[in-house]
Amino acid sequence: MSAGTPEYAIGIDLGGTFIKAGVVDAAGHIIYQASRPTEGEKGRDAIVANIAAAAEAVLAGAGFAWEQVAGVGLGSPGVFDYERGGIVHHSPNLKALEGHPLPLLVQEQLRRPGVPVVLENDANAAAFAEKWVGAGRDARSLVLFTLGTGIGGGIVLDGEVWHGSTGFAGELGHQTILPEGPLCGCGNRGCLEAIASATGLVRRLREAVEMGRPTALANRVRGGEKVTSKDVYLAAVAGDATARALLEETGRYLGIAAANMINILNPEMVVFGGGMTGAGEMLLAPIRAEAQRRAIPAAYAACRIVFAQLGNDAGLIGAAGCVLKASRGSARARP
Amino acid sequence: MSAGTPEYAIGIDLGGTFIKAGVVDAAGHIIYQASRPTEGEKGRDAIVANIAAAAEAVLAGAGFAWEQVAGVGLGSPGVFDYERGGIVHHSPNLKALEGHPLPLLVQEQLRRPGVPVVLENDANAAAFAEKWVGAGRDARSLVLFTLGTGIGGGIVLDGEVWHGSTGFAGELGHQTILPEGPLCGCGNRGCLEAIASATGLVRRLREAVEMGRPTALANRVRGGEKVTSKDVYLAAVAGDATARALLEETGRYLGIAAANMINILNPEMVVFGGGMTGAGEMLLAPIRAEAQRRAIPAAYAACRIVFAQLGNDAGLIGAAGCVLKASRGSARARP
Repeated sequence: MSAGTPEYAIGIDLGGTFIKAGVVDAAGHIIYQASRPTEGEKGRDAIVANIAAAAEAVLAGAGFAWEQVAGVGLGSPGVFDYERGGIVHHSPNLKALEGHPLPLLVQEQLRRPGVPVVLENDANAAAFAEKWVGAGRDARSLVLFTLGTGIGGGIVLDGEVWHGSTGFAGELGHQTILPEGPLCGCGNRGCLEAIASATGLVRRLREAVEMGRPTALANRVRGGEKVTSKDVYLAAVAGDATARALLEETGRYLGIAAANMINILNPEMVVFGGGMTGAGEMLLAPIRAEAQRRAIPAAYAACRIVFAQLGNDAGLIGAAGCVLKASRGSARARP
Repeated sequence: MSAGTPEYAIGIDLGGTFIKAGVVDAAGHIIYQASRPTEGEKGRDAIVANIAAAAEAVLAGAGFAWEQVAGVGLGSPGVFDYERGGIVHHSPNLKALEGHPLPLLVQEQLRRPGVPVVLENDANAAAFAEKWVGAGRDARSLVLFTLGTGIGGGIVLDGEVWHGSTGFAGELGHQTILPEGPLCGCGNRGCLEAIASATGLVRRLREAVEMGRPTALANRVRGGEKVTSKDVYLAAVAGDATARALLEETGRYLGIAAANMINILNPEMVVFGGGMTGAGEMLLAPIRAEAQRRAIPAAYAACRIVFAQLGNDAGLIGAAGCVLKASRGSARARP
């Protein structure tokens, strides 16, 4: 690192409800953090003002001045036009920002002029963070699946997030696993997300109950109670054979997707993150077994399949990491 | 281009039976070419000597001296260790070369010392060629499927072949399309290659005949005659409904794979090459329709799905292009 390059950056996890901000050091540690409501319902200006205020607040809270940080990294769900300064192309939580250059708007709200602000898809930011200071810190290339109500993803190649030609790359949850499978929210049939997300797992539980397979969760399902993927996991731990089989099946579908990524991209690591990884070995073992069954042996041997290490902070850390990297003169120009 | 940089390179398509060599100019045109037997059965030294002789012969035939060419590019099926000077990790046609640094061996056989020699997987070379001077010359990123007895592939991202961490990337024929589908040569079930290659198409024809579906090819299939994918195409053109349905089904499976690549990598183009593209619109139309049905709309809209333009010369041209690119100071170090 050249002398005088800032060793800190502000990372922001921009969610639909809360803005989580933190000051992150060059080792990827959050040294100070705070959160405030997004107030998305108040419109674009309020969101931008809240983001800027969150950044100023953690800077002050950490006792730093602007010259000590490389800039502000924003991580958020959505698709952004990275070639044109981070214009928000599509954002499920922040509709008011669509069509607007969010980084520029935030930059204009900050008290110090010209602070670099970058915007990154949250799963991409998490992938970058896992590569930087998480599960993949020894790897140059990794693929991250984020397992939640949906399945997101991020691809890091030679240390850089691969955005694709128009910012859509990494939609790993929307690879077709079963061509005639269940309808996905995206309109396709048989997407990985439709089958193996938390939502997909609960849907398969309902189908199992309808088919009369025995499970301790049957009465809750039939009674219309809310059942989550965690309930399936807890039932599996308690010895429920159907719950266990459903979790294993989930792992096998994820393993097919992992094998696809190994055969297509030959990455050093495939990383699984998100809430469902709480199922631990019950999920990881079938993922690995199925990937090994399906991937080209030498490409499988060159790849480690692991769980993510940074938890819910990955997006915030990764967004900060993207700014730090840009300030050190990456090949990729940033806004 | 800096003054004095050679504007020509020698490209070699190293097959199991023939070595095709050519002098290629900076526009990707083959200005002189010739071929000779590989003589793989005579062992490593004979193969290397034949490669060197082929290079010397086209150089002389074109009336060039070594200082006028950037080097020699070798394209061949197989997996190579790009990080370690192109050691042959695996080569179906050239077993005698496995474990050996082919580029170095060829370099030592050339009359002029120190001529750069690079080795590239043939599908990767073809992908590079299509991006350089073929179907994708306006694109920075493209994915190429090569459709033949098997299905190969190559991925070009930001103008560079993506090799993966150990040289295995781009095995696009080995993505799982039908998890319970037919056994593939790689050991997996339901690979794209097992279903939608020329071999897969003929296998599905046999199954259709066994199931009693009417086709003009039934007697030939039942009589144990050799039937090719071209026969299926010709029957389809002649109005055979079963042949037509099988071709369309092939296109649909290829379209699933194209949609996967679009959702995962968001490339500017997906290109299909190889002998099966002789089926023209009868194959391309269902590929596009199925990809559109399955890909994220905005990512599909940003991607053109087309046939390759360089035919059988793509590997030779691409290998030469890789050397030319390396001589102009690409970011990627080459042997």
